[in-house]
Amino acid sequence: MATEPPETDEKSLEKLANGDRRALARAITMVESTRKEHRAAANALISRLHRTGPPAMRIGLSGTPGVGKSTFIEALGCLLADRGLKVAVLAVDPSSERSGGAILGDKTRMPRLARHPNAFVRPSPSQTALGGVARRTRAVIELCEGVGYDVILVETVGVGQSETMVADMTDIFMLLLAPAGGDELQGIKRGIMEIADLVVVNKADGDLAQQAMRTAADYAGALRLLRRSAHVPEGFPKALTMSALEETGVADVWDEVAALWTWRQETGVLATTRQNQARLAFRKAFEAGLAEAILSDPAHADAAARSEAEVVSGQASPDGAALALLAEVLGVGKSR
Amino acid sequence: MATEPPETDEKSLEKLANGDRRALARAITMVESTRKEHRAAANALISRLHRTGPPAMRIGLSGTPGVGKSTFIEALGCLLADRGLKVAVLAVDPSSERSGGAILGDKTRMPRLARHPNAFVRPSPSQTALGGVARRTRAVIELCEGVGYDVILVETVGVGQSETMVADMTDIFMLLLAPAGGDELQGIKRGIMEIADLVVVNKADGDLAQQAMRTAADYAGALRLLRRSAHVPEGFPKALTMSALEETGVADVWDEVAALWTWRQETGVLATTRQNQARLAFRKAFEAGLAEAILSDPAHADAAARSEAEVVSGQASPDGAALALLAEVLGVGKSR
Repeated sequence: MATEPPETDEKSLEKLANGDRRALARAITMVESTRKEHRAAANALISRLHRTGPPAMRIGLSGTPGVGKSTFIEALGCLLADRGLKVAVLAVDPSSERSGGAILGDKTRMPRLARHPNAFVRPSPSQTALGGVARRTRAVIELCEGVGYDVILVETVGVGQSETMVADMTDIFMLLLAPAGGDELQGIKRGIMEIADLVVVNKADGDLAQQAMRTAADYAGALRLLRRSAHVPEGFPKALTMSALEETGVADVWDEVAALWTWRQETGVLATTRQNQARLAFRKAFEAGLAEAILSDPAHADAAARSEAEVVSGQASPDGAALALLAEVLGVGKSR
Repeated sequence: MATEPPETDEKSLEKLANGDRRALARAITMVESTRKEHRAAANALISRLHRTGPPAMRIGLSGTPGVGKSTFIEALGCLLADRGLKVAVLAVDPSSERSGGAILGDKTRMPRLARHPNAFVRPSPSQTALGGVARRTRAVIELCEGVGYDVILVETVGVGQSETMVADMTDIFMLLLAPAGGDELQGIKRGIMEIADLVVVNKADGDLAQQAMRTAADYAGALRLLRRSAHVPEGFPKALTMSALEETGVADVWDEVAALWTWRQETGVLATTRQNQARLAFRKAFEAGLAEAILSDPAHADAAARSEAEVVSGQASPDGAALALLAEVLGVGKSR
């Protein structure tokens, strides 16, 4: 993706504050840039945006390909945008790294929403490292929130650690499923049940309606086996059915999301969660950045690679090798 | 815990290699010491231990208080020790920090096993930080493996992140449950289902036998809803019943553990998992140690605290604050 030349801060800021979507797209490109000075400029921009009113609702959404994520986001997004809410759609797509392009990031898959004056649909970035994707997606969320979007939908496919990453930067996490019978139920990824606030079974229409209800009931049963966290009210996590195609149940899903979000805001869970998320993201970014800076010295990078190889081959213990490497790169004498 | 004066490396090494349990206890105390030079000496010791034969079986075990963990470990440990296997029992007890002592680490709760010539029962350490506990428990596992223990049982109570930490340093993870009816089933902590290879329902004796079977069946059903990971063979994760008190089913539980462990060893899953665990532990220890070293400068620590406060209060974005802090502590000029 070619980076357009950055404008002056003042001009960008004014355009962003006025809801200019081209300026937003340009700012996001800067956030996602591999060039440090672009990212620094974008960070400076974000720090100067001052949102008024309540925080945006940051909603994470996951589901395997074919489950109807795009159709659902288009239906839900248009519903909210028609109600006058400003809706931003972002994607964390870890597979884009391998495929060399953004498989999720096709605007044409949400044609109606992408054209809606209240909506902003961002193609997913193709990044080199999943950690980088997550860190930057967080900044993109902050950017969208800063310029006044009310609802920020962050979608991901169920690959590797991407759900946990998205859950760590959103307020509410939703899992989209397709109706499935008996044995097919194994399709849900281990780990996802633990972070889902809502399990939504799509395609509850036509011949699949009954099966969707059964699937939702199965998952409702499984969710009851888990201890309820202090971060949800009675009745959550919840399993629901919906048809994105026929647009039935979409408003009901939103009502549940909104009710949970309001509960979390009123109880202070939202504020606490966001504080913890921000603290953790800050510490991770600092620790990772520190290691990156130290290892930008080729001699240190070589030493680290040697240490890691020894650890992986079992010749050295992780803790011992880390201590020795620290002594080496920090130029401190080893104890004993 | 008073630290005995460290012996010379040669003498300690000889005693450790000869299976001296007092020497092992002393070496563990050094690993767990808050003094850096003790830990460095312990690491040096660990690096000089050379295990012959197959790797030890590192088994993680979790369960809430009252579920019968001690009784089970005593029964299983004695069974294995009687078969001639050398068994070490370790505990990660995050609550000891608050209670000021080791609630799990009472040798008297496993009187028979603690006296067995083939067993070593280590009281849990009382540490200051959970991260510290985990890092040091990993080194203790390596120590026990290095001196020739065949089975290393690492137990934890289900508090906070301790299960994930234990799962990240063991080969197989077991969850112990008590029989429960209907509504009580919510007792299982979110997050644990995804890491358990075996769910074992204890107290399958007397009046509770039927209930234990039902509980195991319920969890077997829930486990089937999760997609099977590539790290377990057909049929796993599994839910079983057992009575630690009557010592029925204990050998069967072990057979399942051993079968899974052997499968993982033969397929190479064990080696790959250990390599990944070691790599991750090394990177975490290095990144954390680097941050710790940099922040040992009081001026840097102040700057970091200020940055974090800005992030938590929402005045600064995590990524931006981290970049700015990095520029400050590394003495680099900020871009732009």
